[in-house]
Amino acid sequence: MSLISVGTMAFDAIETPFGKTDRIVGGSATYVAYAASNFVKPVQQISIIGNDFDQSILDDLTRRGVQLDGVERVPNQPSFFWSGRYHMDMNTRDTLVTDLNVLANFNPQVPASYQGAEFLMLGNLMPKLQKQVIDQLTQRPKLIVMDTMNFWMDIAMDDLLVNLRMIDVLLVNDSEARQLTNEFSLVKAARKILDMGPRFLIIKKGEHGALLFHENHVFYAPALPLEDVFDPTGAGDTFAGGFMGHIAKTRDISFDNMKTAIIVGSAMASFCVEKFGPARLQELSKAEIEERVQDFVDLVQFDIDLV
Amino acid sequence: MSLISVGTMAFDAIETPFGKTDRIVGGSATYVAYAASNFVKPVQQISIIGNDFDQSILDDLTRRGVQLDGVERVPNQPSFFWSGRYHMDMNTRDTLVTDLNVLANFNPQVPASYQGAEFLMLGNLMPKLQKQVIDQLTQRPKLIVMDTMNFWMDIAMDDLLVNLRMIDVLLVNDSEARQLTNEFSLVKAARKILDMGPRFLIIKKGEHGALLFHENHVFYAPALPLEDVFDPTGAGDTFAGGFMGHIAKTRDISFDNMKTAIIVGSAMASFCVEKFGPARLQELSKAEIEERVQDFVDLVQFDIDLV
Repeated sequence: MSLISVGTMAFDAIETPFGKTDRIVGGSATYVAYAASNFVKPVQQISIIGNDFDQSILDDLTRRGVQLDGVERVPNQPSFFWSGRYHMDMNTRDTLVTDLNVLANFNPQVPASYQGAEFLMLGNLMPKLQKQVIDQLTQRPKLIVMDTMNFWMDIAMDDLLVNLRMIDVLLVNDSEARQLTNEFSLVKAARKILDMGPRFLIIKKGEHGALLFHENHVFYAPALPLEDVFDPTGAGDTFAGGFMGHIAKTRDISFDNMKTAIIVGSAMASFCVEKFGPARLQELSKAEIEERVQDFVDLVQFDIDLV
Repeated sequence: MSLISVGTMAFDAIETPFGKTDRIVGGSATYVAYAASNFVKPVQQISIIGNDFDQSILDDLTRRGVQLDGVERVPNQPSFFWSGRYHMDMNTRDTLVTDLNVLANFNPQVPASYQGAEFLMLGNLMPKLQKQVIDQLTQRPKLIVMDTMNFWMDIAMDDLLVNLRMIDVLLVNDSEARQLTNEFSLVKAARKILDMGPRFLIIKKGEHGALLFHENHVFYAPALPLEDVFDPTGAGDTFAGGFMGHIAKTRDISFDNMKTAIIVGSAMASFCVEKFGPARLQELSKAEIEERVQDFVDLVQFDIDLV
């Protein structure tokens, strides 16, 4: 039940209304690995890092069953660096710095040892690189999940549309769903996106939860109302990691199991925002995860007996 | 199992990105009555109308079990009139015209025939008028639910705070909860509001659903993702009417039954936005309501079996 995860491993510097960090570890594949490795081993990582990436993080991930054979290490360049400032609502942010560094020459290669993986998580990356990974696989995974962002819709829409024909599940947020389809109604946007290729669509709405669309079914997973959202960085990737981890663990790609996977992803994301960067994910226990999932059950369950 | 409902009966002129109406019937108590009368009879209305209000609407409400003894009819003045324009997101709107007309002299009186009602719905009105109704009741209702708005927080906060000590359930939207408490986090805002008096708090989040807070419990009711939100006018009042109608019908004021009542309210609100004004509510069948409630069950139910 192996899972290949492709994405960035990076440094972030983050400002929120509640605090500020200098360079801490980040990157989509880092968050996916921390979340998914609670549910499935191995997580087979494909990424690129520079000479400055923390060995202690690599060791920690290895201990958690994350394989790093597909992580290219560039000796004489720094890792990808992103810096941003969140607004009060935590749903919007300004990018302050984007230093591509090693990411400018990322040429993802699937190690022979990863071939045959059942599940593929394509983190947010240039669409051509995401496709390059799919093209290298000798056997099509049972489920391909892809994340993307508005930036690629602006500059690489044709490539993105090609990918949409190759994947099973697309992960976007509400504004990205609207941009991709020119539809304001998320229901209409979802219908158009499902016509573009993916059989499943997850629309993330931050503090307002997430929607799963499939054929003419829809599922609404709430977000847990939190006292404080300390730092939303990585929450979307952590959601993806929890979702994918549950799917890979159960090997069940039915709509019903995806609902459960979304709840698991939402639970993982709710931890992520409690501290800066992946700090909260690094200290999580299995018992805490189960308790948080139960919080989601309590949050939405109700009895109907109208007659 | 009678329910007193206090609020406006009015005319609205509405512009949305999807269309425009001239003067159609509206007002908080009108929407509450249309929604609640599906579940409970009588609905005992307290309001004020001018010489221009449609007799056909009054007849229709009467047929539905709405008592109008508490509705004052002013012979030589027009009814309250509001006109507004919604933005694309349908969560924000600009008020174009507010003509108080008869509402300027509203002096709500509880008819003797309404005394002993078990449930009281205080629609959005000047806090002093809401209190005046409570003060006239010879027997305290089993449950008092109050709606309000940011306008009263701006100009009558002291009166509003007095009311909060007298009621059981407060209904506000997310921005009003924030304004009332100076807290951005809805969880923190909820805790402060529960300290101000009400034992239950419902925070409406429009297309993002609604939250119910009680002690340290929280329930998240989603909104049904809709293809089109045609006109959100009255959706909050319709929600209140469905909520209150279910509570009054079941006479059960437990937290668990309030969850169900919120789902019923959400279902009613999802109908309201499908047409201009109360048009969709006027044509609803019992079967449609039950089907819509079932849609909410399908929307949120999931199985958890993590082990």
